Amino acid sequence: MLGSMQSKQLLISSIIEFAEKNHPKTEVVSNTTEGGIHRYTYADAAKRSRQMANALTNLGVKLGDRIATLAWNGYRHFELYYGISGLGAVMHTINPRLFPEQVDYIVNHAEDSYIFVDLTFVPLVEALADKIPTVKGVIILTDEEHMPETSLSGKVKVMCYETLIAGESTEFDWPEFDENTAACLCYTSGTTGNPKGVLYSHRSTIIHAYAANQPDVLGLSALDVVLPVVPMFHVNAWGNAYICPMAGAKLVFPGAHLDGESIQKLMESEKVTFSAGVPTIWLGLLQYLRSSGKRIDTVKRLVIGGSACPRAIIEGFRMEYGAVVDHAWGMTELSPLGTFNRPKAGMENLTDEEYIDLSMKQGRGMFGIDMRIIDDEGNELPWDGVAFGTLQVRGPWVCESYFKGEGGQVIDENNWFSTGDVSKIDPDGYMIITDRTKDVIKSGGEWISSIDLENVAVGHDAIQEAAVIGITHKKWDERPLLVCVKNEGAEVSKEDMLAYMDGKIAKWWMPDDVVFVNELPHTATGKLSKLHLREKFEDYTLPTDK
Amino acid sequence: MLGSMQSKQLLISSIIEFAEKNHPKTEVVSNTTEGGIHRYTYADAAKRSRQMANALTNLGVKLGDRIATLAWNGYRHFELYYGISGLGAVMHTINPRLFPEQVDYIVNHAEDSYIFVDLTFVPLVEALADKIPTVKGVIILTDEEHMPETSLSGKVKVMCYETLIAGESTEFDWPEFDENTAACLCYTSGTTGNPKGVLYSHRSTIIHAYAANQPDVLGLSALDVVLPVVPMFHVNAWGNAYICPMAGAKLVFPGAHLDGESIQKLMESEKVTFSAGVPTIWLGLLQYLRSSGKRIDTVKRLVIGGSACPRAIIEGFRMEYGAVVDHAWGMTELSPLGTFNRPKAGMENLTDEEYIDLSMKQGRGMFGIDMRIIDDEGNELPWDGVAFGTLQVRGPWVCESYFKGEGGQVIDENNWFSTGDVSKIDPDGYMIITDRTKDVIKSGGEWISSIDLENVAVGHDAIQEAAVIGITHKKWDERPLLVCVKNEGAEVSKEDMLAYMDGKIAKWWMPDDVVFVNELPHTATGKLSKLHLREKFEDYTLPTDK
Repeated sequence: MLGSMQSKQLLISSIIEFAEKNHPKTEVVSNTTEGGIHRYTYADAAKRSRQMANALTNLGVKLGDRIATLAWNGYRHFELYYGISGLGAVMHTINPRLFPEQVDYIVNHAEDSYIFVDLTFVPLVEALADKIPTVKGVIILTDEEHMPETSLSGKVKVMCYETLIAGESTEFDWPEFDENTAACLCYTSGTTGNPKGVLYSHRSTIIHAYAANQPDVLGLSALDVVLPVVPMFHVNAWGNAYICPMAGAKLVFPGAHLDGESIQKLMESEKVTFSAGVPTIWLGLLQYLRSSGKRIDTVKRLVIGGSACPRAIIEGFRMEYGAVVDHAWGMTELSPLGTFNRPKAGMENLTDEEYIDLSMKQGRGMFGIDMRIIDDEGNELPWDGVAFGTLQVRGPWVCESYFKGEGGQVIDENNWFSTGDVSKIDPDGYMIITDRTKDVIKSGGEWISSIDLENVAVGHDAIQEAAVIGITHKKWDERPLLVCVKNEGAEVSKEDMLAYMDGKIAKWWMPDDVVFVNELPHTATGKLSKLHLREKFEDYTLPTDK
Repeated sequence: MLGSMQSKQLLISSIIEFAEKNHPKTEVVSNTTEGGIHRYTYADAAKRSRQMANALTNLGVKLGDRIATLAWNGYRHFELYYGISGLGAVMHTINPRLFPEQVDYIVNHAEDSYIFVDLTFVPLVEALADKIPTVKGVIILTDEEHMPETSLSGKVKVMCYETLIAGESTEFDWPEFDENTAACLCYTSGTTGNPKGVLYSHRSTIIHAYAANQPDVLGLSALDVVLPVVPMFHVNAWGNAYICPMAGAKLVFPGAHLDGESIQKLMESEKVTFSAGVPTIWLGLLQYLRSSGKRIDTVKRLVIGGSACPRAIIEGFRMEYGAVVDHAWGMTELSPLGTFNRPKAGMENLTDEEYIDLSMKQGRGMFGIDMRIIDDEGNELPWDGVAFGTLQVRGPWVCESYFKGEGGQVIDENNWFSTGDVSKIDPDGYMIITDRTKDVIKSGGEWISSIDLENVAVGHDAIQEAAVIGITHKKWDERPLLVCVKNEGAEVSKEDMLAYMDGKIAKWWMPDDVVFVNELPHTATGKLSKLHLREKFEDYTLPTDK
């Protein structure tokens, strides 16, 4: 027997319609690419989104067509979020930090028909112009006055965003369609192989937004002023571009200005209460605040995700600036939020120190996400804060497969998706990332966390950076090799390092060898590249294996 | 093109599973029918829900079967919320405050196969025993020690709740099925005709829970301690029975003890932070607090709904007890929440007085509910705080039809459901109930709010209670008649009343006549019965109509 409730489909267009009706005067403020601050309201944004939907319709864009954006966080990008998806087309946000050959690959893989591009990224598109045959036109996110000279002219149709929508009606009836219709496409920048696309649906996006705005997750209200530093070109700014209009929160877009000084200035002038971004952004802001003596007194909460946050950042913001830092964990395949760190029953009276200890964990589950950790044989491991294994998740905003089936089957028969992270979960349900699946060292059937070893090694005064990789071993399958970069002028031996680590880790976790190098390989985004390190040590033989 | 996200269905069983995994140690505390406080955890509740699912399966209960409950807010009722719906059966919560003939009617209309009943309500079932042939058994919500002597024995199978589940396994694999499957059934106690059933689905229930726990609605976190005074036998305790385990909030059930003293005691001993109920409950609590000198210092927020809340209650709790009172509006057909009153951008620095003014309104829209007001011809009216008309809503947790099609078509071709309320909406989107559709007076094509007139009339010192109804009028179709009950010993004439009202309302709203009576008719639940008043004045002729 079915219930007798309305079968209203969950569609992205309903968000901007809701904001227009219920929060028409609430502001959207943008630091622009052209220079200066732009401000308007949700009512304006809704009107211009409908103008964009009319413009796209006139360009021949239909349900399912992929339309790319290469843009910072700003009001025009925001309008595209609704104009493109609202129409039933697929908004493909491109991460401009990818290597050019990856951008070229994903535009072709997605078969994008139009690209909307910020002034900053026009040169990037110019460099690709000859290699992206599906693209019929490029629309530059500016007005006529700021239109650049571009070598794109003659190769593809080049249009000006403001001119494109200027003559369009502000009326547009958003179409109704199946909520499982594709809405956005975001490629993961996997360290191996080609990027793979995650194709979000309207349903997954709305359910994620509801879940991600529960009080113990982002928890935004209509009194909040939100500055999403996390880019709209990567996993929809962690949902902020949907959640803010849904909650009636004022939005403040930083554009290309992500340095500490610009962020502080915007936070102060717009009375920002909440912001979200990756650790490097917060480190930059913290350093600027300390050196300038400036304050961010309206800011109550900062969300950190993307990678594990150093304790000093959490501590600095909390103790010096009164801003609570919440740790989040997620990934592109999860829309992106999976866990969020907020206290729970029994933690009513944590001291600052205890709160910061708690904040170092990646957080507890959000309702809607089912998670578990498993060992090599697929056995579920206990949530005891000790056992660690592959982290798996499933739920209505978890990816079922990649776009066009790339990578084949990615979930098991019970819908479990392996995240590629290795973690433990404590008895209170807080998840702690221990390693990446491909980096963990499998020694005699047991796992050793490379990250735990690195954290201990960098505690030594003489060590600037450290990496641990597994080296093939006849008896144990793999054993850990510690690779270190010394601080300039520092002297330290293999024996010193092992003596230092002794007692800080389990005996059988002790590296079988220590090697000193001048530098460690890094990825384009500045992360340690264990892939390249492993290649470098491919033929290495451990002294214990001779 | 469809997205490639998981098609995980939204099912009620996932809530209790989530709470067990993520908040196993969080408490559920109940003031019991047998006497004394019972306390256990979400882990216990989950286990016993699965035992109940096994027990129901053994009783032959299948997907779609209706199982009734007649119970207070308590842990066994909570287990049934998950045991029954989780299995795919339909939990039919019966409001014991209905007239016995209505209970008889709805049990037969629902074709309930089993009834779970609290000790308090056993006599109610005994009185109906001969008239409910579909009922195969009655399960009394207690243990063997407290089982009563009952005349039900011999008529139907009588079982003891604790005995029923005692031998059952705590393992049960909750079935997966279409999220549109019926989950709960709740009858509206409409003033005319038979009660009509609203049949909630798993989908509508989960989406409502996500939406109703946004920060600007109930906004519950895992640090909250929630005392739902609003009954689980009526519209699922406004979603609290789902939202609390979803948020990991501690639950405190008051059982049958709804007087001010019991509520205060429970709030203090369990450190309650949040509660929800109807105005009469809060009036009782406020009176008790004032007379006893007791406090409720842990309580931060109270939600009031069910009917418009007097200003004195909002003011009293805020100014004397530091508890913010949030006004909510909803109805059975809306699962039930539709609007919720929280401040928004531009209201950052309201004074207490301004906040209380705001709180008198029924609230602004929740994301997911689309609302509008229309005039007699179906034209949409502006949100200007002046125009008032029929309030209509639509959305994924709004009823599409009543159970078994009772009442025929209840939504229009665009899914708009007429709420039966007449309201205005201010430019900030706050909705204000002005009247009921059937009570508003239609004078020469324009509407006059009976409630506005009553509010003015009761402002007169001599008046105890007032009601305004429309009387047929040859020229104007309808004109208002004011019917008053005087305070004991007070003297007041028709002319006095009209003179008092003059200047306080528009000239053309002035009642055409004033009549004094000894008492006004009321419904079983204590509300003014305009239906009976209209019957009484059916043949009345206004002096202006002679």
